[in-house]
Amino acid sequence: MNFLNQDDTICALSTSAGMGAIALIRLSGKNALSICEKIFSKPLQDKATHTAHFGRIKSGEQLIDEVVVTLFKNPGSFTGEDIVEIACHGSVYIQEQILALLIENGARMAGPGEFSLRAFMNAKMDLSQTEAIADLISASSKAAHKVAMHQMRGGFSREIGELREGLLSFASLVELELDFSEEDVEFADRKQLQDLVEQVKLKVSALLQSFKLGNVIKNGVPVAIVGSPNAGKSTLLNTLLNEEKAIVSDIAGTTRDVIEDTIILNGIEFRFIDTAGIRETKDTIESLGIERAYAQIRKAAVILLMIDLTETPEKYVLKQIEQFSHNTNNEDQTLIPIFNKMDEVDLADFKGLEGKGIFISARNKVNIDVLVDELGATIGDYGTEDQTIVTNARHYDILKKCELSLVKVEEGLESQIPGDLLAMDIRETLYHLGEITGQITTDDLLGNIFANFCIGK
Amino acid sequence: MNFLNQDDTICALSTSAGMGAIALIRLSGKNALSICEKIFSKPLQDKATHTAHFGRIKSGEQLIDEVVVTLFKNPGSFTGEDIVEIACHGSVYIQEQILALLIENGARMAGPGEFSLRAFMNAKMDLSQTEAIADLISASSKAAHKVAMHQMRGGFSREIGELREGLLSFASLVELELDFSEEDVEFADRKQLQDLVEQVKLKVSALLQSFKLGNVIKNGVPVAIVGSPNAGKSTLLNTLLNEEKAIVSDIAGTTRDVIEDTIILNGIEFRFIDTAGIRETKDTIESLGIERAYAQIRKAAVILLMIDLTETPEKYVLKQIEQFSHNTNNEDQTLIPIFNKMDEVDLADFKGLEGKGIFISARNKVNIDVLVDELGATIGDYGTEDQTIVTNARHYDILKKCELSLVKVEEGLESQIPGDLLAMDIRETLYHLGEITGQITTDDLLGNIFANFCIGK
Repeated sequence: MNFLNQDDTICALSTSAGMGAIALIRLSGKNALSICEKIFSKPLQDKATHTAHFGRIKSGEQLIDEVVVTLFKNPGSFTGEDIVEIACHGSVYIQEQILALLIENGARMAGPGEFSLRAFMNAKMDLSQTEAIADLISASSKAAHKVAMHQMRGGFSREIGELREGLLSFASLVELELDFSEEDVEFADRKQLQDLVEQVKLKVSALLQSFKLGNVIKNGVPVAIVGSPNAGKSTLLNTLLNEEKAIVSDIAGTTRDVIEDTIILNGIEFRFIDTAGIRETKDTIESLGIERAYAQIRKAAVILLMIDLTETPEKYVLKQIEQFSHNTNNEDQTLIPIFNKMDEVDLADFKGLEGKGIFISARNKVNIDVLVDELGATIGDYGTEDQTIVTNARHYDILKKCELSLVKVEEGLESQIPGDLLAMDIRETLYHLGEITGQITTDDLLGNIFANFCIGK
Repeated sequence: MNFLNQDDTICALSTSAGMGAIALIRLSGKNALSICEKIFSKPLQDKATHTAHFGRIKSGEQLIDEVVVTLFKNPGSFTGEDIVEIACHGSVYIQEQILALLIENGARMAGPGEFSLRAFMNAKMDLSQTEAIADLISASSKAAHKVAMHQMRGGFSREIGELREGLLSFASLVELELDFSEEDVEFADRKQLQDLVEQVKLKVSALLQSFKLGNVIKNGVPVAIVGSPNAGKSTLLNTLLNEEKAIVSDIAGTTRDVIEDTIILNGIEFRFIDTAGIRETKDTIESLGIERAYAQIRKAAVILLMIDLTETPEKYVLKQIEQFSHNTNNEDQTLIPIFNKMDEVDLADFKGLEGKGIFISARNKVNIDVLVDELGATIGDYGTEDQTIVTNARHYDILKKCELSLVKVEEGLESQIPGDLLAMDIRETLYHLGEITGQITTDDLLGNIFANFCIGK
């Protein structure tokens, strides 16, 4: 199958697989209307775009279903082609029968993301916007949803577009000089170019920086809870889980994939890492030599160091924190000491811990909100509506290449290299920026991107 | 919650739960349009029915999604009320957010089947048709689908309606006589009434008869495979499974619930019963004393008695069949002897078995089609498009009551009971027939029926 072939009409189930009250089957392509007409009880070609029609679908004499067919005519559709949506009763049998009928009548099954691919090919959206659709569908937290939505709406594309535009006009001017090379003119002001390159580099660098945040927003913040066996680690986990349940409205009919130890707090997903290796030992701090547990802890962005106040006098608490800080010693990690069982001790004995961690009672749910806020603060503000955050590893890799080629441009300017070489370096940056938004693509690239989409999108 | 209250506007996810490319959220009720308008970027009240509108859903300043909203205005909608369908990106986060927004703005979560209940309450369909929707959605075989579709399209209702009509006019005539009781007139011809009652009884009896078929069509035909350990039982099961796979087109994106040992052959579902108790014994036939295995076999509508020809001389085969028939001896069960490994023996040695069972090779897939046809034949022809088959236990119970009350009418006619008593008996039959189509309902009845629906339907 050549997935770039757009001469044919594709079909797929677009709603979640399995049985439901209603299922939606989508057809897109030149023959979407005529193929649907062959199995539907009413003519469609003469109907207006964006209208819905109730009728019957038959396979020969067998009545398959009573359905509602909605038309979205080219160009005012998601893909830019004619689209027909068939809302049928959601039995798997009916879904299969209708898809089989569509295929018999000339459609073919869409590959993963092929509707989105067509939207891209027909310039309904650029590549980074298209990629955001897949992110949007799999976003399970408010933060991940927000970032994907910003990208789908073209926020990222606009920024890349602005960077490209400035560089493009300079590249043209430099190339123009080449035509007058014997006259030794400079159409492109080198100082201005230097300023521009500096600006673009700053912007690219900021985007690269945002990937650290983008990555945890998209994939969840890895958190390790460490502490001695009775410090209350699992009690805390349960309490946080209930906190989530209280926040996330449990709406009948919707089903979140249950991922063990994943909790969404204040719109951010936290993945609690299994530090079993540590839990098993008698004394956490002393036994950190266990390499496996260490390795797990190193993966965490946030470490919750739980200390049982009923078991640990103040001076040992401070010592433990110090030891632990010394042992982990990773700038990218945030260590949050948690002083548990605060309601079982005389707080006057722990005056020295103030400001050095969070006093809580995991069991009696005291100060859990403070902890939740602190967890949220670890990833900082994920932004105003307008802020672009890079969440896509492909974009990150390309931006890295941009950065390198910008350094080349800068160096070229400093050493006053000839215009033709300079133009080549600028073009290289432009090439990379174009790879993000899809002005520059290869079949392989598109194939890789869309293979990760779900079918029906 | 009073589910018969139709003053409010209900909402639910109507597509299968979980993540998909697209999800469909449905709103039905007086305020469906105005509630949706509060969160959607475009006015809807002024739009025509059956039109689709692209726009944005916002929660305060947060953009939740870009969606397509389709309107189905009262009365031309499924429920007979204003319906708004929101097709959103299929992330669970978005589904939850939109439902939460709708609820915030005055809708409430629909109970199971509440959209269908409203369709019934607004006389868009009668009760048996409404019940058929749930059957249609869960139908996984062609036969089950066909029967449910016939019922949903009103086939069953029409038959019940015709029976009711005839009886109703007689009941009126008999009741009219009561007004003239002193004059001793007979408006209702007793002979005609007798004929009619006879007809209705025959029809009711035919419907009751059809339930046996209807039940296996809806719930699958229970099949037991019995035989000695090496007779090839699991090989046969695997071969049949492959047969199914070859028939059922495996269409990407649709997911059939995998039920162990359930196979759809020629449009009928067969449930293979676990007869482990038998499998474990050395000699099946001799050890049928094992009560547990017996009990399992008694549940089967079809018994496949597998005999290994390489191990059993002809006369023992005949003896086994005879013994087995004697031991099971259930008129409702069909025994199909299967002579396996036909390709490993000299068939000349088994001339006496011809016509007494099916020669196959489970391993080499010989004569499997013959077996499949024979299996299909056990449930007979499930009908022309027009045949009504009762699949619903509630309908069966009511028809049983109808039958009893018809006998009372007959007996009354024979013993020439007074018109007022006769009228009462006819009214009882009418009452029961009305319970099927829903002219007669109680809140409890409706509650029970719709509790078994899925949410969103």
